[in-house]
Amino acid sequence: MPDRIYNFSPGPATLPQEVLAQAALDIVNFNNKGIGLIELSHRSKEFMAVTDEAESLVRELLSVPDNFKVLFLQGGASTQFAMVPMNLLARDQTASYLNTGTWSNKAIKEAKLFGNVQVAYSSEKSVFNHVPSSGDYQVDPAAEYLYFVSNNTIYGTQFHDFPKSDKLLVCDMSSDILSRKIDFTNFGLIFAGAQKNMGPAGCTVVIIRDDLLDRVPATVPTMFKYKTHADKGSMFNTPPCFAIYVIGLVLKWLKGLGGLEVMAKMNREKAAILYEAIDSTDFYRGHAEVSSRSLMNVTFNLPTPELEAQFIKEGAALGLDGLKGHRSVGGVRASIYNAFPREGVEKLVVFMKEFARKNG
Amino acid sequence: MPDRIYNFSPGPATLPQEVLAQAALDIVNFNNKGIGLIELSHRSKEFMAVTDEAESLVRELLSVPDNFKVLFLQGGASTQFAMVPMNLLARDQTASYLNTGTWSNKAIKEAKLFGNVQVAYSSEKSVFNHVPSSGDYQVDPAAEYLYFVSNNTIYGTQFHDFPKSDKLLVCDMSSDILSRKIDFTNFGLIFAGAQKNMGPAGCTVVIIRDDLLDRVPATVPTMFKYKTHADKGSMFNTPPCFAIYVIGLVLKWLKGLGGLEVMAKMNREKAAILYEAIDSTDFYRGHAEVSSRSLMNVTFNLPTPELEAQFIKEGAALGLDGLKGHRSVGGVRASIYNAFPREGVEKLVVFMKEFARKNG
Repeated sequence: MPDRIYNFSPGPATLPQEVLAQAALDIVNFNNKGIGLIELSHRSKEFMAVTDEAESLVRELLSVPDNFKVLFLQGGASTQFAMVPMNLLARDQTASYLNTGTWSNKAIKEAKLFGNVQVAYSSEKSVFNHVPSSGDYQVDPAAEYLYFVSNNTIYGTQFHDFPKSDKLLVCDMSSDILSRKIDFTNFGLIFAGAQKNMGPAGCTVVIIRDDLLDRVPATVPTMFKYKTHADKGSMFNTPPCFAIYVIGLVLKWLKGLGGLEVMAKMNREKAAILYEAIDSTDFYRGHAEVSSRSLMNVTFNLPTPELEAQFIKEGAALGLDGLKGHRSVGGVRASIYNAFPREGVEKLVVFMKEFARKNG
Repeated sequence: MPDRIYNFSPGPATLPQEVLAQAALDIVNFNNKGIGLIELSHRSKEFMAVTDEAESLVRELLSVPDNFKVLFLQGGASTQFAMVPMNLLARDQTASYLNTGTWSNKAIKEAKLFGNVQVAYSSEKSVFNHVPSSGDYQVDPAAEYLYFVSNNTIYGTQFHDFPKSDKLLVCDMSSDILSRKIDFTNFGLIFAGAQKNMGPAGCTVVIIRDDLLDRVPATVPTMFKYKTHADKGSMFNTPPCFAIYVIGLVLKWLKGLGGLEVMAKMNREKAAILYEAIDSTDFYRGHAEVSSRSLMNVTFNLPTPELEAQFIKEGAALGLDGLKGHRSVGGVRASIYNAFPREGVEKLVVFMKEFARKNG
């Protein structure tokens, strides 16, 4: 086993080595204050500075408009599936959802507990191998918002153009936030679990337009109102301090690389190397339609499940870890988020060619 | 400033140094696997083993009966204030609450969103300076459960005997879980945010009797049903991996010390040293009534707010940090949870005597 493996896991996922090294120091003694990072009171000036910096880096890197709040919450994206309709959808109202995979499906299920749901599009019949273009569906004119998942981790598809609609857009960006620039026009709410592109598990970043905060009914419990957290700068109760701290480190690393334009270019290049290897032989078959291919999760199959199992096993032995595809599609999935190094992709491609030659 | 300060913060709070040292190693390279702890997939066998060990240590140390589930959730105790009634209280039913401070007050507010609430006792008029004995209140005979907070962080009070009632007991043990043994008879649900006595912020441990899991109405969102998490061993969605890992380390440390009986003895001794210092002079006045005094949070006042401010400032300069009382009671609060070292208490007492001599 090499000193450090290449971790292709879909999340929790690989993080920059310099982030881990810094966290190791701060956990024992934060900024030489004689106290560990995770022992700091969340209301101490030291920790407030950590949170403030993380928030301002989110704002800077994503160019978040001033009329949006940035929140650091708990409960994962799965909690957002309920919080979105709890806050934005009244019993007699309708919301429109694009069903492009497991995560949108789960969000639809939760939304139905609160109001009417129009599923404007579903790619379920083709095993979610693509995302729709804006002309492919009709959004209910009465819809309060149009919900979509920007990148579908399990199926390896991604919206390269966001839906064109006059509706308020609500987006689960868990698996591609900070991988490219976003135009916030039409967006009302974006959320993302941290554990793919931003940091460790345990924190969900929510970016919400401030005029939406007051829509929430009084009957919603305090902790499930976005307004509760917005009013207190994510400090209504003890936040997930460690995760916020690591997010801050990852954002600093990303800024140091040159920000989102540089990152997006690196992501395009990494993914191109891998898709080229897939397309250069009949041995590998990409799951996603070409125009919907994700730059974050590259999914492909081999001629047989037996060969897939062998591929995953031999790859792991070479330090290419976490390549097993999700059970819904089988095969191989290489998750190559922001922090995944290009060298790991190159090593995988060398292995793919060798494996195809031997077993093709 | 000394190498390591004495951290009297009420939470996030001080942790054992050996826990921090181990975490620093594992964050960079977990068990020499060539992958950092927070990069591990939550479904990897390595991380599943971390969770399994943390759960079995909770069970072993607290002697949790087999018919209880142990869950690792997110959202803090504040989320439990809503989840408890969402899962256990129907619209036409009644729950009984003992109001012994800020946290029970907040729990009462959330419960009222879901059903009828009887506040069977409140110590609010005496600034929550005590907790009731079982004879002090009458529980509504129709109550589904009796809710109480075992230790009141802000006011420095603690139930030394749990309520005697034939009702199902529901308890917020955020600030004294694992400080002593618990008799689970009559308990239906216990929850505790980790960041005081168990680990870092970001995880809430819930211990729930398994026959209660099916009470939840179908209209409750998936993530807010205890059953969702119980059925999937806290892995329905990505759990707060890092916090669970640190909880496991803290529990191993606690087991190594000799478990809860040894810990309870150490806690009694530490608190006795401090209360003796308070009682030995008129300069310091304890906030809590003697019979309700907390072994976890020791609250006291000085003759004037000016002297209190000076005390906190001079203490901090000596490395006695986080002594400022909560704004609701002012004065001084020394939080001395499990991991707080006895030497720190002794150093505080030396400082208290010196400060009283100079300013008395």
